[in-house]
Amino acid sequence: MKAKIKVTLKRGVLDPQGKAIEHALSTLGFGGVDEVRQGKYIEVELEETDEARARAEVEAMCETLLANTVIENYEIELAR
Amino acid sequence: MKAKIKVTLKRGVLDPQGKAIEHALSTLGFGGVDEVRQGKYIEVELEETDEARARAEVEAMCETLLANTVIENYEIELAR
Repeated sequence: MKAKIKVTLKRGVLDPQGKAIEHALSTLGFGGVDEVRQGKYIEVELEETDEARARAEVEAMCETLLANTVIENYEIELAR
Repeated sequence: MKAKIKVTLKRGVLDPQGKAIEHALSTLGFGGVDEVRQGKYIEVELEETDEARARAEVEAMCETLLANTVIENYEIELAR
């Protein structure tokens, strides 16, 4: 089973990478961009085949290692 | 319109960040993990409301700035 995890900064947390992209896009002539936020995307290939157990395991991974839950949110999507 | 962009390394491209996560997970006692790949996740808030034009614009952003298409793939999802 494959877990696709998006880790994003919470609203209100300063995002200098996003700001840098925003600025670069405007320099390159892309107008009409209101805001850019950058996060991480992680794919984890699991041996577990049960969806509920896989989700619980990936949640534990996010809480302990993959996301800093003080400033980041995470979103898990499971696929076969 | 909001564009959600996933930028991932192509198959076969070495991913040291993914390997580091893999190793850390195993050290933390998470077994049954076959492979980890890390990519980037970018959210762009656009003023454009037409889906086709928004997609074309975001594709141009990916090709010129957001992804290095020699070693990376990108995937665009649009949401209102």
